[in-house]
Amino acid sequence: MTSVDLLQLPTSTPAAAKLAELRSLLHRHQLDAYLIPSADEHLNEYLPEAKQRRSWISGFTGSAGDLLVGRDRAWLFIDSRYYEQAELEVDAAIVQLCKPGLEDHKTLEEILEDLGRDAAKTGGEFRLGYDPFTTAVHQFQTFQKRVEPCGVVLVSISGNLVDQVRAQSPWLEAEPLPTYAASRLFAVPDDQTGETIAQKLDRVREKMQRSNAHILPITKLDQIAWLFNLRGWDVPYNPVFIAYAIVTSDAAFLFTNLDRIDLAVQETLQSCATLLPYEQYAETLRSLLNDKRRVLLDPKHTTMGTQQLVTGLIVETSSPIEGLKARKNEVEIAQMQQANLKASRAKTRTLKWIADRLASGELITEADVAATVEGFYAEESGFQGLSFNTIAGTGANSSIVHYGTPNPQQPLQFREFLLLDSGAQYASGTTDDTRTIIGGDPSPEQIDRYTEVLKAHINCAMQRFPKGTTGAQLDGITRSTLWFAGLDYGHGTGHGVGAFLNVHEGPNGISKRVQEPLEPGMVTSIEPGYYQPGWGGIRIENLYVVRELPSEPSEDKAPKTPWYQFESLTYIPFDKQLIDWNRLDIRQREWLTQYNQAIIEKLAPTLSSEDADWLRAACQLGD
Amino acid sequence: MTSVDLLQLPTSTPAAAKLAELRSLLHRHQLDAYLIPSADEHLNEYLPEAKQRRSWISGFTGSAGDLLVGRDRAWLFIDSRYYEQAELEVDAAIVQLCKPGLEDHKTLEEILEDLGRDAAKTGGEFRLGYDPFTTAVHQFQTFQKRVEPCGVVLVSISGNLVDQVRAQSPWLEAEPLPTYAASRLFAVPDDQTGETIAQKLDRVREKMQRSNAHILPITKLDQIAWLFNLRGWDVPYNPVFIAYAIVTSDAAFLFTNLDRIDLAVQETLQSCATLLPYEQYAETLRSLLNDKRRVLLDPKHTTMGTQQLVTGLIVETSSPIEGLKARKNEVEIAQMQQANLKASRAKTRTLKWIADRLASGELITEADVAATVEGFYAEESGFQGLSFNTIAGTGANSSIVHYGTPNPQQPLQFREFLLLDSGAQYASGTTDDTRTIIGGDPSPEQIDRYTEVLKAHINCAMQRFPKGTTGAQLDGITRSTLWFAGLDYGHGTGHGVGAFLNVHEGPNGISKRVQEPLEPGMVTSIEPGYYQPGWGGIRIENLYVVRELPSEPSEDKAPKTPWYQFESLTYIPFDKQLIDWNRLDIRQREWLTQYNQAIIEKLAPTLSSEDADWLRAACQLGD
Repeated sequence: MTSVDLLQLPTSTPAAAKLAELRSLLHRHQLDAYLIPSADEHLNEYLPEAKQRRSWISGFTGSAGDLLVGRDRAWLFIDSRYYEQAELEVDAAIVQLCKPGLEDHKTLEEILEDLGRDAAKTGGEFRLGYDPFTTAVHQFQTFQKRVEPCGVVLVSISGNLVDQVRAQSPWLEAEPLPTYAASRLFAVPDDQTGETIAQKLDRVREKMQRSNAHILPITKLDQIAWLFNLRGWDVPYNPVFIAYAIVTSDAAFLFTNLDRIDLAVQETLQSCATLLPYEQYAETLRSLLNDKRRVLLDPKHTTMGTQQLVTGLIVETSSPIEGLKARKNEVEIAQMQQANLKASRAKTRTLKWIADRLASGELITEADVAATVEGFYAEESGFQGLSFNTIAGTGANSSIVHYGTPNPQQPLQFREFLLLDSGAQYASGTTDDTRTIIGGDPSPEQIDRYTEVLKAHINCAMQRFPKGTTGAQLDGITRSTLWFAGLDYGHGTGHGVGAFLNVHEGPNGISKRVQEPLEPGMVTSIEPGYYQPGWGGIRIENLYVVRELPSEPSEDKAPKTPWYQFESLTYIPFDKQLIDWNRLDIRQREWLTQYNQAIIEKLAPTLSSEDADWLRAACQLGD
Repeated sequence: MTSVDLLQLPTSTPAAAKLAELRSLLHRHQLDAYLIPSADEHLNEYLPEAKQRRSWISGFTGSAGDLLVGRDRAWLFIDSRYYEQAELEVDAAIVQLCKPGLEDHKTLEEILEDLGRDAAKTGGEFRLGYDPFTTAVHQFQTFQKRVEPCGVVLVSISGNLVDQVRAQSPWLEAEPLPTYAASRLFAVPDDQTGETIAQKLDRVREKMQRSNAHILPITKLDQIAWLFNLRGWDVPYNPVFIAYAIVTSDAAFLFTNLDRIDLAVQETLQSCATLLPYEQYAETLRSLLNDKRRVLLDPKHTTMGTQQLVTGLIVETSSPIEGLKARKNEVEIAQMQQANLKASRAKTRTLKWIADRLASGELITEADVAATVEGFYAEESGFQGLSFNTIAGTGANSSIVHYGTPNPQQPLQFREFLLLDSGAQYASGTTDDTRTIIGGDPSPEQIDRYTEVLKAHINCAMQRFPKGTTGAQLDGITRSTLWFAGLDYGHGTGHGVGAFLNVHEGPNGISKRVQEPLEPGMVTSIEPGYYQPGWGGIRIENLYVVRELPSEPSEDKAPKTPWYQFESLTYIPFDKQLIDWNRLDIRQREWLTQYNQAIIEKLAPTLSSEDADWLRAACQLGD
């Protein structure tokens, strides 16, 4: 129960009262609707609490999903990960849930097109207000291309309207704004990043020169953290800090709350950058512009706020930092291996802990499981926090892809799945993995579905592929056997993962929308699943790093295509009760046998002898 | 030997003389380079002879590949289908071959970026001339985004410079311009298209309205032929005619050489469109514009020539005709089935004919094979011509993906591959298929590679997939087993095919670049391959139509995802000498057995008893 309820608001629910107040602002600005995107000023996925506007006003806490508020209707656009969660969190009477991908469900653009056309029919126009600082350039361009021709007028509103509602009574008193950009910043040493700030700046400038650009404004926090080998905890789960940065051909600027940076760290930074208060970003950017300097703007990773500041020449292209950050160097890979081994040990110990409790008939809940894995994470050295909200769903809850809140009232059932998707941040790196287990006595259907998901996972994990292979191609390869069985899952197969950075990062990924080729050093999850509301859900997730295969010796001097394969960073046993060995083909069995051997080799020596014995048994598979 | 050689040109080769003359025009226009794209005014893949500018000036006859001519260097950009052919046709001393995709080979944009940067270093600019009527809007936008920031200035030149060279002595006399837009036009009856012109116009207008557009100018000839149920033979292989069209909310215009249209056909057309001479396109388009009417421009299928005519509001989006044309209706599918059965019979008879000749020790050449299949095509009713240049390559020639000219001096060898890729245009539909065979006594390596390509083909052909699946996902599925064997092919897996229209059409296809979902009624080739220069090449190609699977009855009223599968249009036996049955898995064997049964059922009843016996033996496989 939130404190707003206690104040007895005039309308029936907190969301209704907030939306009513927002609508009075729509009226004042002569707007027909206002867009409240999931993102904030830095296009974050995980937002600082002070900027969780969509969640504050609608109650929906998912990590993705834009809200459109009209004069008398409102729409929330969610992807399949959040279908069930949104049903639980949002009052359908005041916010309509749109699930694009389902038959007859529309996208944000389609709803806006309809609204524009309706207004045009009566000779009018549909005025859509947006906050330029929370709207990506890319999103705005899509609006320009698709919804403007249908009669929608895009109205830039400075000062966020949700912030204005939030700053009023009774909310101001009941829910004071959390602190913002106040966490202490800390440097990541070069022997952990494998590259100094100066070296990174050199590579960024080289790429800028190749694009003939002179000024690179940086909006995304993980790009800034990577570039300056600096971390903070301004947002949950991501070790980043609220900041802007600008790189030019001969200078670099970092804009943040400087009060929270140690002098020693300041000195290091000052050797290659100018440190300025966060508020000086806009004026500094403007002062750097002249009619000969071209500004590199990445439409996906820059807001319209920055775009509106730039009056001169723009080079519109992907930020060079995205590609550089994604291809981890050998030092970063070694660090990621270490971190993921720690997380694998913690998860393995959790699985053993659950097995013991269930065997002894002890009642444990979803919340107990989450607390246990988090406790084991924290026992490992260098633990910094979680990399995302632990998902521990049992029974029907396991079918909620991003089940947000492990329930302290929900005990694990003997014949039901437990889906445990969790990750940690260590000083050495970021982790993310999922195991689905069963208390015992699985049904044939549970074994069938689990084995299908495992096959999909292995098919992707063991695939060798030539340079140039895209995430979309690998996505198809992962789903092929599932599709034959008439099964599928509504989310992508994998996402990029940062090196002690965000658990979701681009540009690499494995989904039908990813045209980016996978390159050596990129880290990606592989996480196929299967979800049936009411019945349960399965997901099997490891992290992998892309490695180049040694090329075969040949007398032929013609240039050879490099070939790649995945190397696992995650070593956690699968639940063997759920695996139908007879339905794996030879290659899948071989992969699984080798993977199980590797788990034992890597984990057993550091486990208690009791845990190690359990692990060896868990990894004993096949004939 | 071409006639130009006989005139004893002042420079050493015909191409060198032509380029020298073009360079004098560069000088006159103060250009640093001139772009000669593969395409013409209608962005055709197969060009009318009069517009084959790149081929005329460079000698390269491939269906794709842009030429960039600088003051003292020239570059030809080709994809892997043409690597070998370009080596044979182009003098490397005067034109540098760029094979993007190979290590250290640059794309057109990358070369232009380099040239722009080099010019910028010395304080200058690089002036690139282009003909707006042979440059797609999309290509121009890419230039604007990528090469303009590097210092390239895009200079629109009216009047094609290659045409100007061609109109001069000695070429004018030696190579008189072929006739243009003079073929007779003929209507396709409604019982063959399944939809009247008026119905098609209704659907196009409905889509235009959804995009809030009032005027749709049409540049692509296959879109025009589809819309007006009209065909002609103005270009090789494609049953289209040189024309423009414009559709507005309440009118339609067709611009073409009207002299070649029968009065009866004119009457039909005039019931729903205004017929005007080709030359009146530009002025008519301009006359339709006003400040309230929005023009729908498809950047991929419109030239800068048209874009420059449009002064008012533009809605930039895919042409609605592309999607409508791609989803064949049941009448069109039945027609395509008929046409492809005819072509399958012709190809099967050809395979039998080859087997007989080889068995009797008779010497036959690549050209004999091409002539034979073309003869059998022509024996079938409704034959209109070939759908592309027959590819009949033996031995090392089979590794040239688009081997253009079957050699009358090149006899088939006993232990060598013959790759036979051919297709026909029937009044009922368009065909395209490839079989690779061997005279006899294949090596283990030949069997190994062939079986791998066959597995790749079957894996795609038998895949079931949910609505929304893209060509990129299916491309990965096709390559997966090949990649495990360390093999790959440099071209896409499949392309869309028109219904008695172009053998290559969009928007569907199967390749890593295709994000378009496959929908019921779309026709696509599946044609994986393997090519090793010097050793030989393999390609196995059928056409398929996408069909929706009947949904399983269920009490659940929740919306169900539709599932799709491929249905073959092609029925031609594979060379069983090359198939290692033991390396096929159960599903692949099942598919192959059923496919072979279907071939016998569909073809045997219409073959001579001798041919039918041969076919039955050819389809006898397995243990």
